[in-house]
Amino acid sequence: MIVDVSKKILIVGLGLLGGSYARALKRFGFHISAITKDQSSIDYAMGEKIIDEGSTELDERIIGDADLVIFALYPHIFVEWIEENQGLLKSGAIITDVTGVKGSIVYRIQDILRPDVEFVPAHPMAGREVSGVENSTDKIFAGANYIVTPTEKNTPEAIQTCMELGRLLGFSNVTTLSPEEHDEMIGFLSQLTHCIAITLMTCNEKEDMEKFTGDSFRDLTRIARINEMMWSELFVANKEALLEQMNLFMDKFAELKEMLEKEDVEGMKKMMRYSTERRALFDKK
Amino acid sequence: MIVDVSKKILIVGLGLLGGSYARALKRFGFHISAITKDQSSIDYAMGEKIIDEGSTELDERIIGDADLVIFALYPHIFVEWIEENQGLLKSGAIITDVTGVKGSIVYRIQDILRPDVEFVPAHPMAGREVSGVENSTDKIFAGANYIVTPTEKNTPEAIQTCMELGRLLGFSNVTTLSPEEHDEMIGFLSQLTHCIAITLMTCNEKEDMEKFTGDSFRDLTRIARINEMMWSELFVANKEALLEQMNLFMDKFAELKEMLEKEDVEGMKKMMRYSTERRALFDKK
Repeated sequence: MIVDVSKKILIVGLGLLGGSYARALKRFGFHISAITKDQSSIDYAMGEKIIDEGSTELDERIIGDADLVIFALYPHIFVEWIEENQGLLKSGAIITDVTGVKGSIVYRIQDILRPDVEFVPAHPMAGREVSGVENSTDKIFAGANYIVTPTEKNTPEAIQTCMELGRLLGFSNVTTLSPEEHDEMIGFLSQLTHCIAITLMTCNEKEDMEKFTGDSFRDLTRIARINEMMWSELFVANKEALLEQMNLFMDKFAELKEMLEKEDVEGMKKMMRYSTERRALFDKK
Repeated sequence: MIVDVSKKILIVGLGLLGGSYARALKRFGFHISAITKDQSSIDYAMGEKIIDEGSTELDERIIGDADLVIFALYPHIFVEWIEENQGLLKSGAIITDVTGVKGSIVYRIQDILRPDVEFVPAHPMAGREVSGVENSTDKIFAGANYIVTPTEKNTPEAIQTCMELGRLLGFSNVTTLSPEEHDEMIGFLSQLTHCIAITLMTCNEKEDMEKFTGDSFRDLTRIARINEMMWSELFVANKEALLEQMNLFMDKFAELKEMLEKEDVEGMKKMMRYSTERRALFDKK
């Protein structure tokens, strides 16, 4: 199935990301339904005309009608949903997700899933510091990465469908990585940065520091305002890869500290030159 | 001396910061002179009409005329300048600086300085990622902190003069700290953040990471593009205070790592809630 507008799309979990998917996809005229826990989310999305129908229950008709199902749930809730409710899915349906970690989820879902339904894992690298369908917007996809993390169980057709979904949503870069490559990358670029931010924010409790705060400190701690339910779950779900990144960081930080102790100015300068050079690679293109 | 516009101001070191001082002060009609190493900096500043005269030499008349001298130099060059040239200063002159570390500089200068010249140390917490008088702008002072770090050798009048200078420059907050309080604060808010940024930027050399970089990683590494001459000198000049802050950070980071190893989700959530709560204090007011 390559995505065409006659297909019915179901979004399970109508929060910030699920809502933003609905908003982006509705522009193309797809039939979009939603299953989510709060009636108020459905009411809002119906009012905004970004879904056609929705339910807070496991509506068998809605689920059974869907050709493509997008799970925008916390990882453990996604796994539970599949364990308990996969019998309701249409034969031949493709399911995908938005989970920010892959290795610990992908194989588990594919192992338990019915053979006539295919799960193509994906990670849309987009978000906001606010939550809820009321804050949904399709603008978060522009300039962002959509990563499909297929396994050997996936068919080329379903992988193509999932990549096309990413393009329709408006992501600027749609690409594939193995689940393991993905988890290493996300451990470094996203999870390690959050670990650093929350550590910096809590390691010195001296009063009145905020009076002297400049942009550097604010930049490094912007993400220290963090959804503790989601991130603690993501950290544990990516434990091994994240611990490896934390170790790389600690070792390098200890090296810098030793150079300072020894007043090894040349060593520090060399590290700073390398840092300056590498940072240029990461500029927004 | 409370600053009035009949006073002559000399800026030694006409770079980004020295030039921005000249630009801001010229609005009030002060006579402003400059001594700096490159003729091109003087030519530029004369063309912009932000200085009245300047020299690349130790011009005895220019130096001897100045009521207020602002040293915008690297720390070790500032110390050398005073050691070698303080005989040229006018009796009764007040001198101040822009040095980003205090303890290791302030007492040293005050110890060797002539008794008829007073040094009031100050740290203007403003800057840009570019350098040179050509990039000077008085806009960098709005919203920023100007910190005077007097010692018991300073007179109330000279401290007032220096604080008034900060207000004239356009700083939003003008305040005093002891050199020691200043160095602890700057060790945490500024130097530790730079240590973290350059460590993060250099601890993982895996290729192609930049393709997946989002805003979090970019925010945490913006300051990883760093002037290695200046920062290596500032780190060493504030060695003890910075090492203390690095230790605080490492200990807390190790705590977080241990919680992840043990899958202590409640402990991680508690840390994240505290981080979220503390970060609110540091929002731009």
